[in-house]
Amino acid sequence: MKKIPKNIDFAADNGLLDRRFFLKAGIGVGSGLLSSGALGSEGKARFPWMKQPGAGMGESGPSSYEAHIKRAGVGSQPGTIGSGASRTPIEYLDGIITPSRLHFERHHSGIPDIDPNQHRLIIHGLVERPLSFSMEDLSRYYHTSNIQFLECSGNSGGNMMSPEPLQRKASDLHGLVSCSEWGGIPLKILLDEAGIKPEGKWIIASGSDAAIMSRSVPIEKIMDDAIIATHQNGEPLRPSNGYPMRLFLPGWEGNACVKWLRTIKVTTGPSMTKDETSKYSDLMDNGIAQLFTFPMGVKSVITSPSFSLNMSGKGIYQIKGIAWSGAGSIKSVELSADGGKTWAEAILDQHVLPKSLTRFRSAWKWNGAPATLMSRAIDDKGNLQPTRDKWFIGRAKNTFYHFNAIQTWSIDAKGEVNNAYL
Amino acid sequence: MKKIPKNIDFAADNGLLDRRFFLKAGIGVGSGLLSSGALGSEGKARFPWMKQPGAGMGESGPSSYEAHIKRAGVGSQPGTIGSGASRTPIEYLDGIITPSRLHFERHHSGIPDIDPNQHRLIIHGLVERPLSFSMEDLSRYYHTSNIQFLECSGNSGGNMMSPEPLQRKASDLHGLVSCSEWGGIPLKILLDEAGIKPEGKWIIASGSDAAIMSRSVPIEKIMDDAIIATHQNGEPLRPSNGYPMRLFLPGWEGNACVKWLRTIKVTTGPSMTKDETSKYSDLMDNGIAQLFTFPMGVKSVITSPSFSLNMSGKGIYQIKGIAWSGAGSIKSVELSADGGKTWAEAILDQHVLPKSLTRFRSAWKWNGAPATLMSRAIDDKGNLQPTRDKWFIGRAKNTFYHFNAIQTWSIDAKGEVNNAYL
Repeated sequence: MKKIPKNIDFAADNGLLDRRFFLKAGIGVGSGLLSSGALGSEGKARFPWMKQPGAGMGESGPSSYEAHIKRAGVGSQPGTIGSGASRTPIEYLDGIITPSRLHFERHHSGIPDIDPNQHRLIIHGLVERPLSFSMEDLSRYYHTSNIQFLECSGNSGGNMMSPEPLQRKASDLHGLVSCSEWGGIPLKILLDEAGIKPEGKWIIASGSDAAIMSRSVPIEKIMDDAIIATHQNGEPLRPSNGYPMRLFLPGWEGNACVKWLRTIKVTTGPSMTKDETSKYSDLMDNGIAQLFTFPMGVKSVITSPSFSLNMSGKGIYQIKGIAWSGAGSIKSVELSADGGKTWAEAILDQHVLPKSLTRFRSAWKWNGAPATLMSRAIDDKGNLQPTRDKWFIGRAKNTFYHFNAIQTWSIDAKGEVNNAYL
Repeated sequence: MKKIPKNIDFAADNGLLDRRFFLKAGIGVGSGLLSSGALGSEGKARFPWMKQPGAGMGESGPSSYEAHIKRAGVGSQPGTIGSGASRTPIEYLDGIITPSRLHFERHHSGIPDIDPNQHRLIIHGLVERPLSFSMEDLSRYYHTSNIQFLECSGNSGGNMMSPEPLQRKASDLHGLVSCSEWGGIPLKILLDEAGIKPEGKWIIASGSDAAIMSRSVPIEKIMDDAIIATHQNGEPLRPSNGYPMRLFLPGWEGNACVKWLRTIKVTTGPSMTKDETSKYSDLMDNGIAQLFTFPMGVKSVITSPSFSLNMSGKGIYQIKGIAWSGAGSIKSVELSADGGKTWAEAILDQHVLPKSLTRFRSAWKWNGAPATLMSRAIDDKGNLQPTRDKWFIGRAKNTFYHFNAIQTWSIDAKGEVNNAYL
């Protein structure tokens, strides 16, 4: 069963197989059994766990064999208690949903322990009727739910600026992105209750963390698809994701999706807070900083193989990864195994949703020689994920926000996978 | 802000509001503030959690204020260690995804602690090439992911057979249903590798729990959309859901989706195991038991208001609930507030997926008088959720599997919500 079928259709050079191959039998890696007699009696208990009753109901956690699947890079910045990040272990996940316990974090003054009975959402500023909402008040309003990604605008950039490629896991390089079913109330409904005055063109949203994290958002986005998110993946938000409520702006940078949301103030223009001027802005090489780059660019990452997930001998592998775009849906993902000379289209999983992670896969016949894997995503607005060189054009040396260039993994003859710049 | 707007469009009697009302402002339950000055300085810390840095990164669990959201009715049957169930707390959830820690359980001999490195999937019986697959073997194959419900065919029935309506929470009555993103390998591909002999028409799937739970499944379903599920909501299956792999049959009764899957044997016909003859079968009033009722019927439940989630005075409420069908997608959900005399169409959330939970909602203006709430789902194959009376027609008195009749909640003048038969 180890032999490769004869009529493999290659879709690009260096072993990338056509999608039709992957969707049918032919990989043949299972071990053949001489006869069903070799099974022994399939009804006969053979492993220790088949010989006695297992654990009782309610044991809900992951298997101890999967204890390595946890938030990666957990840590606060030196001298702070709660200013830092943790990352989603994207190299160990599949599908599009990120379990809430593994959603990335980026906090500016730790995770407040908010009593929902005391918490209020306050809408004020340039409105006809300033309003205060309790959780019970909000429960009366129309809710919606959508599966959408959230990405920190500092994702990838910090580590991918290194002069030499850092040899780190996909999660360490690109794990500030996650995807959840976000549920809550369209903010438009609440602002219509308050009545926006004609001169109200922006809002400033502020959190009730100790940092009082505050960001300005144009009113068009608020009235389009912004929600007051109260639920994530079916349950109330976890404290590390803004319990009891956060602003959620589909497709827009994570920092603007203010957690532990307390106030929405309608204003005439942006409030120019610290986190939208000195931080989360893009310094260009002409010395001018671009502010308010809200939508996250089209992007993809191969999560397997990737650094630390090495090859175990030549043969057929499943390449898999995630793609997303703040502008809309993923239209296609292309893969190269020869450093970008030739490309083949990947298979996308069933759920290709707007502003969501999309899972892509492909079959690859690795011949044991060094190879260079790349993925590039295209969204339904026609945006193409840029090469690394192209991404840097026009940017100042020290800027790193909104990095969405192609990730390259090089594979050596031993099957070791390394981060590479190309 | 407490008054109801003048031009409410009613969609059915007794206060059910038109969908257009719910999607715009007008509920007006927020407390008005006299002026934005009444807010104090919105930048000034007011709550204890705003005065000092919060917890550090990695605190991933739910808020302590939500500790009541846990698996309900956890318990083994008397005299057993691990034969029993736990239920999804559907009355506290929103959206369609069930967090894996809250997915219902139904085990027959507890949860085995399986070492994935020792575990093998064995395909044998009427095949050309009996095969054995390690986890690493399986990782090479094409995977897919889909958001789909799973329901125990004993859901609802056990409790809803009571001569008098049991006054229990929605989870206690109907919580053996959950919805996840299930990821894994189409079983068709693996069976094609093995080569099904012409006389192979069914399979029997067996688990590696101590009960060696075994169920027969016709080959048509296996070759249609059955998967060997290895992932749930992005991460490897939890042990309580079959780690490291389970059979997953979209839309079909949970018991047939054998957990801790170890063997697939291709057979000429059903194997008539205990769990498809004495259990999980439907005894009719002519004394004949119907076997192999695989697809779960079209069904819906209002999760709020529901028993224990009482009304707090007259006014506008959000009615919400879940609907699903093993035959396909939910086409519509209708609500009644007058015990089924008049019906209004509910709003469905964005993601209406085949064989998935669908979230429905409606605005209801409760006038403080006794009322009777009902929901009925219709799927895209034209199936309509039956009334309780209709469901019983033709069935023997003691049968309770595959119960999908309409759930009725009665509300008294004090706003107390009770389970009711109608």
